[in-house]
Amino acid sequence: MSDPESNTKDRALDIHKKYKGKVEIIGKAALNDNDDLSLFYTPGVAEVSNAIKSNFEMSYEYTNRANTVAIISDGTRVLGLGDIGPEAGMPVLEGKSMLFKKFGGVDAIPIEVGSKDEEDIIKFAKMIEPSVGAINIEDIEVPKVFRITKRLKNELKIPVFHDDREGTAIVVRAALMNALAVVGKKPKSVKIVVNGSGSAGLGIVEILEASSIGEMVVCDTAGAIYEGRKNNMNEFKEWIAKTTNRKMETGDLLNAVKGADVLIGVSNKGAFTKEMIQQMNKDPIVFALANPISEIDYNDAKAAGANIVATGRSDRPNQVNNYLSFPGFFRGMLSSMASKVTDSMVLAASDAIASSVKKSQRSADYIIPKFYNLRDYTALAVRIAVSVAEAAVKSGVARTRFDRDEIKKETKMLLSRYSKIEKTTDRLNKKYQ
Amino acid sequence: MSDPESNTKDRALDIHKKYKGKVEIIGKAALNDNDDLSLFYTPGVAEVSNAIKSNFEMSYEYTNRANTVAIISDGTRVLGLGDIGPEAGMPVLEGKSMLFKKFGGVDAIPIEVGSKDEEDIIKFAKMIEPSVGAINIEDIEVPKVFRITKRLKNELKIPVFHDDREGTAIVVRAALMNALAVVGKKPKSVKIVVNGSGSAGLGIVEILEASSIGEMVVCDTAGAIYEGRKNNMNEFKEWIAKTTNRKMETGDLLNAVKGADVLIGVSNKGAFTKEMIQQMNKDPIVFALANPISEIDYNDAKAAGANIVATGRSDRPNQVNNYLSFPGFFRGMLSSMASKVTDSMVLAASDAIASSVKKSQRSADYIIPKFYNLRDYTALAVRIAVSVAEAAVKSGVARTRFDRDEIKKETKMLLSRYSKIEKTTDRLNKKYQ
Repeated sequence: MSDPESNTKDRALDIHKKYKGKVEIIGKAALNDNDDLSLFYTPGVAEVSNAIKSNFEMSYEYTNRANTVAIISDGTRVLGLGDIGPEAGMPVLEGKSMLFKKFGGVDAIPIEVGSKDEEDIIKFAKMIEPSVGAINIEDIEVPKVFRITKRLKNELKIPVFHDDREGTAIVVRAALMNALAVVGKKPKSVKIVVNGSGSAGLGIVEILEASSIGEMVVCDTAGAIYEGRKNNMNEFKEWIAKTTNRKMETGDLLNAVKGADVLIGVSNKGAFTKEMIQQMNKDPIVFALANPISEIDYNDAKAAGANIVATGRSDRPNQVNNYLSFPGFFRGMLSSMASKVTDSMVLAASDAIASSVKKSQRSADYIIPKFYNLRDYTALAVRIAVSVAEAAVKSGVARTRFDRDEIKKETKMLLSRYSKIEKTTDRLNKKYQ
Repeated sequence: MSDPESNTKDRALDIHKKYKGKVEIIGKAALNDNDDLSLFYTPGVAEVSNAIKSNFEMSYEYTNRANTVAIISDGTRVLGLGDIGPEAGMPVLEGKSMLFKKFGGVDAIPIEVGSKDEEDIIKFAKMIEPSVGAINIEDIEVPKVFRITKRLKNELKIPVFHDDREGTAIVVRAALMNALAVVGKKPKSVKIVVNGSGSAGLGIVEILEASSIGEMVVCDTAGAIYEGRKNNMNEFKEWIAKTTNRKMETGDLLNAVKGADVLIGVSNKGAFTKEMIQQMNKDPIVFALANPISEIDYNDAKAAGANIVATGRSDRPNQVNNYLSFPGFFRGMLSSMASKVTDSMVLAASDAIASSVKKSQRSADYIIPKFYNLRDYTALAVRIAVSVAEAAVKSGVARTRFDRDEIKKETKMLLSRYSKIEKTTDRLNKKYQ
């Protein structure tokens, strides 16, 4: 038997080479004859263009805009690989596009832009706005990405989502709420230490800040972030300093975890030690989410006394992975024609994921949904989409009425329809290999 | 019975509303289980990103880049509708994307950019370069589009094609060569008048200039273009003035057509009169290509004495339509991994189309292929793809060896594969309507 990890690497390379990438663009309908050509293309299409010309909002009715997302990256912060360039970032975006369709029925264009310049990326996103219904910002280095996302959220009329930040936060909070329930602790009475102030770190602080958490301390490579700290700061860390750590703790991570109930790592492999876990409060909850190698291995964390451990890995219990959130989130956002991402939409998605683990199933090794059969994901996608759409309407950012049954039906239809397209591609791949 | 034209309009609106646009983005393979997720997404995808990081050229092997085209427009010159805005231009681009896939097996991203600024559009195209294998410029006003295309052709490492110009020229020249053969005239002994100096006009002049045509005169709204003309000129018309009309004809279109063998209109409805055709040389060839209403109707032109008449309309003989050229052209360009569009590739595509009408079939009403069964298009796509790829290799712009059988096989496979996907979408559309 070969090493399973190197086996995955080889198989991943092989399968990408075999298919030459992972996504393709097809017609929503067949072109069977010249009559179809005259309706979908000239001369019929002129009438459709004219209808949109009289009312640009009709682009949501007559083109695929209402279901299209641009995934935009510059390849400067890809997985744990860092700044590897736009071409090298593309496989991740294509993978995301597959997940968007499979789990959300969303058409996502993967775009790696050939500029690292902040203003260039903002301009690119603004220029693509008339062609898409939403934008997903992905794999861009901090703190640049925070400034880009802030500008775009303010300046565009379509919703802008930062998956590394908001998508991760949604899933982490869902897992955390279930973990706290398992150990019988209340959110408002716990101390949480977050290690890492990148996209995920900021997103987690933001969502927990909106969730009435007792106490939070955020550490980066310079130790605890506190108001007045001088070194290694930026405007976003200033916000973290003002928002968290009201006891003004200073010092390193080992110091910060003393008496903490929860330790969340969105940092680097090996950043957590057994000693840290031993310094924590009773029933430690440890999320070691660095990818592909965790801050501390699941087994080591358990051996050090952790009650509940979550990682980013599929080969350990409690895998925290964005794919649980973003497809359903965009489904709900697009179906409600939301113009913005609001806090209440983010919280609603997180609650939907958390509550999809039934109380009776909930345990130290089951705080987050896991799908052995990917088709079971549909129920969660529906739950998230409905919750997000409802929150969008309540937030006043939706352009449709909220109709639970309609959104349920649409989501189920899109996912069922796509599973049938997948059957065809599966069959064709066997035939043409 | 209702009026067939208004019937097409209503049916076009209905069908676009029913499907909410015309294209969607799917996975090239199915995600059936968690193992698939680990290969196509994390952790497997990291290895693929690493492989591309070490050699950016591998993006052509491991992502869909080698088969992806960005169709870029700003909605300023859409069909005969003019500047209708990016949202309103989208239905045309989505239609093109369908044709790209159906007739070329090419994945084309339709993008309408939200800026009319020349530098913005150039910047946008440059930024999207790492994500695509080629760019198709579409529906942008003149002369801005000529400057944009010129810059992009010089500054990008991937091929840039201007369909309104080069795509139209390929088909017009093919039809013209067959028309001249039907009337028994040699290209180098004829006088051709082109009415219109927009994208199509310039493209036609360029391709005919490269085809040893006897004499050419181009007219615009100010009459014949000649060297030294002062009014209504730009740098591209200056080139036309230097390249054509060596007899320095002045005056209006009616004057220019005197003794002409061929009259080509890429202008406006009603621009040609019977009187003009009566002024022409024996066996007049008239291409009245304005859309949707021709410069002169087929029947009127015939009544005025035209021997051969072509239009842009599907309800008349000899329909000159771009869809005959661009899908096969891009297929050949992508399959040969060409870095540029060369004149010889354009001429090769045109010859491939012309020669697909057999001598025995060729007649006044059959100078250009017409497909009653769209599946018959495959043979033409293969012919164009092979010719373009061969010309790319000979021009020294291809990055692959030329293997006729491989390109034939790939093109056939892609078109056959897609026709099977269409069967599925067709079936699903019936099921979910």
